[in-house]
Amino acid sequence: MLLSASPTLAAPPAKPGSAAAKTAARIDPTYWFVGMKNPKLQLLVNAPGIAADQVTLATYPGVTLDGFQKLESSNYLIVNLTVSPQAQPGKLQLKFAGAKPFTYSYELRPRNADPARTQGLTQADFIYFLMPDRFSNGDPKNDVVKGTRVNHIARDSMYARHGGDLKGIENHFDYIKQLGATTIWPTPIIENDMPKASYHGYAVTDCYKVDPRYGTNAEYVQFVKAAHGQGLKVVQDIVLNHWGSYHHLFLDKPAADWFHAFPTFTRSNYNAFTLNDPYASKRDRILENDGWFDTTMPDVNQSNPLVSTYLIQNFLWWVEATGLDGYRIDTYPYSEPKFLMDWGKAIGEEYPKLALFGEAWEGTEAEQAFFAQNIFPPVNGFKSNLPGVLDFQICFGISDVLKGDGGDLNKLYHALQGDWMYVDATRNVPFLDNHDMSRFYSVIGEDFSKFKMGIAWLLTLRGTPQLYYGTEVLMKNFSNPDGKVREDFPGGFAGDKTNYFVNRPGQAGEAFDYVSKLANYRKAHPVLSSGKLMQFIPQDGVYTYFRYNDAGECVMVIANNTKEAKKVDGTRYAERTDGFTSGTEVVTGASIADLKTLTVPAHTAWVVELKK
Amino acid sequence: MLLSASPTLAAPPAKPGSAAAKTAARIDPTYWFVGMKNPKLQLLVNAPGIAADQVTLATYPGVTLDGFQKLESSNYLIVNLTVSPQAQPGKLQLKFAGAKPFTYSYELRPRNADPARTQGLTQADFIYFLMPDRFSNGDPKNDVVKGTRVNHIARDSMYARHGGDLKGIENHFDYIKQLGATTIWPTPIIENDMPKASYHGYAVTDCYKVDPRYGTNAEYVQFVKAAHGQGLKVVQDIVLNHWGSYHHLFLDKPAADWFHAFPTFTRSNYNAFTLNDPYASKRDRILENDGWFDTTMPDVNQSNPLVSTYLIQNFLWWVEATGLDGYRIDTYPYSEPKFLMDWGKAIGEEYPKLALFGEAWEGTEAEQAFFAQNIFPPVNGFKSNLPGVLDFQICFGISDVLKGDGGDLNKLYHALQGDWMYVDATRNVPFLDNHDMSRFYSVIGEDFSKFKMGIAWLLTLRGTPQLYYGTEVLMKNFSNPDGKVREDFPGGFAGDKTNYFVNRPGQAGEAFDYVSKLANYRKAHPVLSSGKLMQFIPQDGVYTYFRYNDAGECVMVIANNTKEAKKVDGTRYAERTDGFTSGTEVVTGASIADLKTLTVPAHTAWVVELKK
Repeated sequence: MLLSASPTLAAPPAKPGSAAAKTAARIDPTYWFVGMKNPKLQLLVNAPGIAADQVTLATYPGVTLDGFQKLESSNYLIVNLTVSPQAQPGKLQLKFAGAKPFTYSYELRPRNADPARTQGLTQADFIYFLMPDRFSNGDPKNDVVKGTRVNHIARDSMYARHGGDLKGIENHFDYIKQLGATTIWPTPIIENDMPKASYHGYAVTDCYKVDPRYGTNAEYVQFVKAAHGQGLKVVQDIVLNHWGSYHHLFLDKPAADWFHAFPTFTRSNYNAFTLNDPYASKRDRILENDGWFDTTMPDVNQSNPLVSTYLIQNFLWWVEATGLDGYRIDTYPYSEPKFLMDWGKAIGEEYPKLALFGEAWEGTEAEQAFFAQNIFPPVNGFKSNLPGVLDFQICFGISDVLKGDGGDLNKLYHALQGDWMYVDATRNVPFLDNHDMSRFYSVIGEDFSKFKMGIAWLLTLRGTPQLYYGTEVLMKNFSNPDGKVREDFPGGFAGDKTNYFVNRPGQAGEAFDYVSKLANYRKAHPVLSSGKLMQFIPQDGVYTYFRYNDAGECVMVIANNTKEAKKVDGTRYAERTDGFTSGTEVVTGASIADLKTLTVPAHTAWVVELKK
Repeated sequence: MLLSASPTLAAPPAKPGSAAAKTAARIDPTYWFVGMKNPKLQLLVNAPGIAADQVTLATYPGVTLDGFQKLESSNYLIVNLTVSPQAQPGKLQLKFAGAKPFTYSYELRPRNADPARTQGLTQADFIYFLMPDRFSNGDPKNDVVKGTRVNHIARDSMYARHGGDLKGIENHFDYIKQLGATTIWPTPIIENDMPKASYHGYAVTDCYKVDPRYGTNAEYVQFVKAAHGQGLKVVQDIVLNHWGSYHHLFLDKPAADWFHAFPTFTRSNYNAFTLNDPYASKRDRILENDGWFDTTMPDVNQSNPLVSTYLIQNFLWWVEATGLDGYRIDTYPYSEPKFLMDWGKAIGEEYPKLALFGEAWEGTEAEQAFFAQNIFPPVNGFKSNLPGVLDFQICFGISDVLKGDGGDLNKLYHALQGDWMYVDATRNVPFLDNHDMSRFYSVIGEDFSKFKMGIAWLLTLRGTPQLYYGTEVLMKNFSNPDGKVREDFPGGFAGDKTNYFVNRPGQAGEAFDYVSKLANYRKAHPVLSSGKLMQFIPQDGVYTYFRYNDAGECVMVIANNTKEAKKVDGTRYAERTDGFTSGTEVVTGASIADLKTLTVPAHTAWVVELKK
C-alpha cells in the first residue's frame, strides 16, 4: 500500500479568511478503510468558511451520511459517516454546498491482510531504540526540506537537526540484526515542523504526516515493509497527550475546547500520583492532566469527544496504513484517564496483536502497575487497559544496584517481586537507559564489569528488553542537558572519523560482542524469553535467579555485586538445580563444574546453561 | 468477672511420666462461655498418660461430646464439644476413664454484656504505647515471683526485669489522660517465664496467664475495668506467630507438628515479600513463614488445624474474659496466610467492634497494604482481613522528612497517597517510634522544632495515632541495642531522682505540653479525627493539608521543612480556604490574619483552625 493520496501540507493551513487561504479542503483522516470493526467514521473537514456549508453524500452502497456539525471556528466541519461491513473500496463523493461549492473525492481503501504486518511483540523480541535524527543520515536530500520552519542542519548543535532519517536506519538493518535485536523503535517519526529543537519528534504538528526530514509517508510504509522483509519489527513512538504549538489544529483551532488553556502558561505538575491519591486536591489533579508538558506543547483536551475520536482514528489509521507492529505511548499518565481507556479499547479491539506499551515514569512498583493492566479494581474510575509499560522500576533497580560499590541488590529483586500487581508483567519493557536519562555506562562509573552485569540482567529477565542506541558501544554522558545523551552514532554520518557500524575499537567492540552474543543466545534459546522465572532473595551481595521450562531447560543467572569473589553455597538453589550436574557460562563458554559450590568473581554476572 | 478459676501453673507442667508429674489435668481453654457464635469447642487436655483414657460427658442440656482424639504425645488428648445456644452456664463433668480415672469439672461461664467492654477504637482515639516492665512499679510484691525462672530484678541491666507492672500503669492513668491519650497499649502482658530477657513479653510461655510480675489474671481484668471506668481503652499486644521456648506446650509438645522444626536452628529470612512474589522459591517462602523468629522463639505450626483452633479460642477467650478493646498483632506477616484469614474471620465475627491492627514492618505502601484489608484480589490465596496496620510508611515518611536539613516532603505525601490501596486507611495506626526503633527525638537530631512538626503531623493525619511512652518528654537514644530505647520512665520507680509524672523540667515540659495541648484540642474537635483529608503536593519545602467536614469546620496543617521562613501563596489552597478569612494556630493561639499570604517560620508546622 502506498500513501500517495496523503495530504502534502508542508506548512500548516493558512489562517482562515487570509488572502492565502486555500479553497481546497483538507479532511482528516486523509483516507479510510472498508471493513473496520467500528463502522463509524468522523471526518474533520478544514477549509475557509466551510462551517456554513451543507453536506451531502452521493449514493455509495454501504455508506451513509449520518450528519454534520459546526464547530466554533468557521473553518471546520465535522462530518459523520457510517461505513457498513458491506461497503467496497472506492471514492465517496462528498458535496459541500456553500459560498464556494465543491465536491471532495474521499477514498475508502481495502484493508491489507498481509500476515507479515502488525505482528506485535513477544518476550522473544529485543527492541533497539534510537533517535532517527541522530542515528544515521541515509538521504542527504531530505536534510533540509523547503517549506519547513528550519532551514539548516547543524551537527555541532545539540538542539539542531543533524540529518538522520529513515533511510539511515534502513541502511543499518544489518547492524541491528547483528546485535541480536529484532525490533526497531525510533523516536516519533511524525511531522514536527517546529521552528527549533524538534529533532526529538515529541512536538507533533501534523498527525497524518511523516516528518519530511525523515522521509515521506510512502517511504515510511516502505521502511516498515523492508524491516519486515528482514525479520525486523517496527514500533511507532506516539504522543497522545500533547501536540507541538505549530500543529495546524492549534494554529487554527477547530474550537477553543480542543485544548486545555489557562489564563497564563501553566505547566503540568508532572505528578501522576494525584490520579489515585484519595486526598488529592482538584487543583493538583487538573494541573497534572491539563497543564502543558512544555511551553511549546499544548495539552490536547481528550475529554472533548470529537478530539478523542480524532486521536483514536489517527492511531487506527497508522496501523492500517503501515502495518507497524506496536505503539510506544509517550507520557502515558498525563492523558485523561477516561480517554486512555477508550483509546486502548478501540485500538486493542481492532488490532489485538498490536504491541502497546507506555511510558509511566513513576517511583514505585504500585504506581507503575497502576498504569498497566493490573489486579486493582478501578480507582477514581480508571482501570488501565495498557498491556505493558516501560519498566522504570527495573531500570532504577539495575542502576541503583550497580552505582558505587556494592549497591543493594534488593532494589532489583523488589522490582520483580512487585510483578504480583500486574495482569501480565511479561508485557513490560525493561531497559537500562533512554533518551531522557543519563547513559547507563556513565551512571555505573564507566565500569565494564558492571556494564556486562547490566546487560546480562536486561537480556535474561522477563519482558521484552529495550536497548538505547549506542549503549552497546559504550556511548556515555550525563543527561544534562538532554542533548548530551542524544549524540550521533559514530559512523552514521558522512565524514565521521570512526564508523562503529563496521569497526568498533577496544572495549566498544567487546561491549558490542557481549550484547550480541547474549542476545543471539537468547534468540536461539527460548527458555530465556518464554521460560518461567524463579528468584532467590539476595544474600551476601549475591543475587540469583533462574529461567526454566517444562522441557527441562534451565538457565541460572548468578551475580556477585561485591568487589570480592564470593563463594556461594549452591545447594540453596536445589529446587532448580536438582537434576543438573554442571553448566556452561553462555557468553564466555566457561565450564561450571560444580553447581553445589560456586565461586563468582567480583562484580560479575554469570549466565549459566545448566547441563544434566 | 473474675478469673479466679484460671490455672495457677507458675511453672510449666512437669515432664510426663516424671516423679513430679501431677495427676490433675490442665485443660485449655481454662474455661469457656455459653452463647458464643461458634458452638464448637476444642479442649486440649494435658495430664500424664491421658492419651489412653476414654472420655465421657455427664448429661448437660445443650452440650454434646463430639469425640476425642489422641495426639503423638501420651500426655495430651483433644476433646471436642458442641455448646449449643441453649446451653446454660454451669459445670460440665468430663469423666476420664484410664489408669487413674478422674472427673474434671469444666466451667461454662455466662458472657458479659456490659457495654463499657470491648468498645474498639476509632480515629478519635490516641494510643499510649508503653512497656509495663519499664513504665512504673506499682506493686513491689510482684517484682520477683517465686517459681518463675528469674529470681531478681536489676534496674541497671537493660536485659533484666525492672519491676514495672499493671498497678504501675493504673497509678498513672491520670498522667496518660492529661497527655490527651485515650488508649493504653502495653507490650504483651502474657506470661513470659523465660530464664532471661523476656521483660518485653514477646516470648509467651502460657497462653492463658498474665505474667505474674505484672499481676494476676484477676488483676488484669480489674485493670481493664478500671481503665474503662476512667474513659481509657486497653489494647492487648499479642503474638500469633511464635511462643517462647519455655512455653509448656513446647517443653512437652502435644505433637511434633505443633511447631515448625528444621534439622538445625533456622531463622526466618524476615522477608514477607516472598508471600506475593510471583517468582519466589519455595525455600524462601518456607523460611519466611516457618523459620524461627529467634533462637528462643519457636515458630508455631498454624497449618495444623488443632493449633489454629487453639490460637483462635485463646484470643476469643481473652476478649470475653477481660473486655479488652483491641488487639495489636505482633509480626503479622510471619504467620501462615491461611491461618491469618481464619483467625481474623473468627475473631471479627465474634467481636465486630474489637479493634485489630497488626505490625507489618514493610518497605512500601503496597506491601504494607497487602497485610491490611485492601483492594487487591487474593494473591497466592491470601487476602488480608485485618482492618488496619501500624503505619510504618508514615513513620518512615515523617522521620525521613525531618532527618537532616530539609528532607523530601514527598516521602510523607506519598505515605498518604498510597492509601488508595486500602479498604479503609483510617483504620491504620500512625506513629513516630516504638520499642524496636530509635527514639524519634534522637532520629531528628534532638531538634525541638522538628519534634513539634512530627507531633503536629501525628495528631492531625488520618488514623488512630500512637505515641511511644517517653517520646512526650523527649526521651532519647538509638536502638542499638533495643534496651537503649526501653529505659525506665523517670518517676515510675521508687527512688527515682526525677518524677516526670508530676514535674517535667525545661523542654521535656514544653514537649509534654505541646502533645497534651494538641491531643486535647483533637479530642474536642472531631474534625481532626473524623474529618475528610485533602493534601496538596509539597512545593518549595512546604507541605499543606486540610481536615474538613460538612459542618464547615476546617483545620489547615501547613509545614515549612526548610531552614528559612517561607512566604506561601495561600490562593493555591482556595478549594479549602474559600469562605474563611483568618485562622488561629491551635497550640500557640497565634492569629493568622491573612490566608492568602502566609509566612511560615523555618522548621515549623502550624495547625490552624480556620475562621469565617
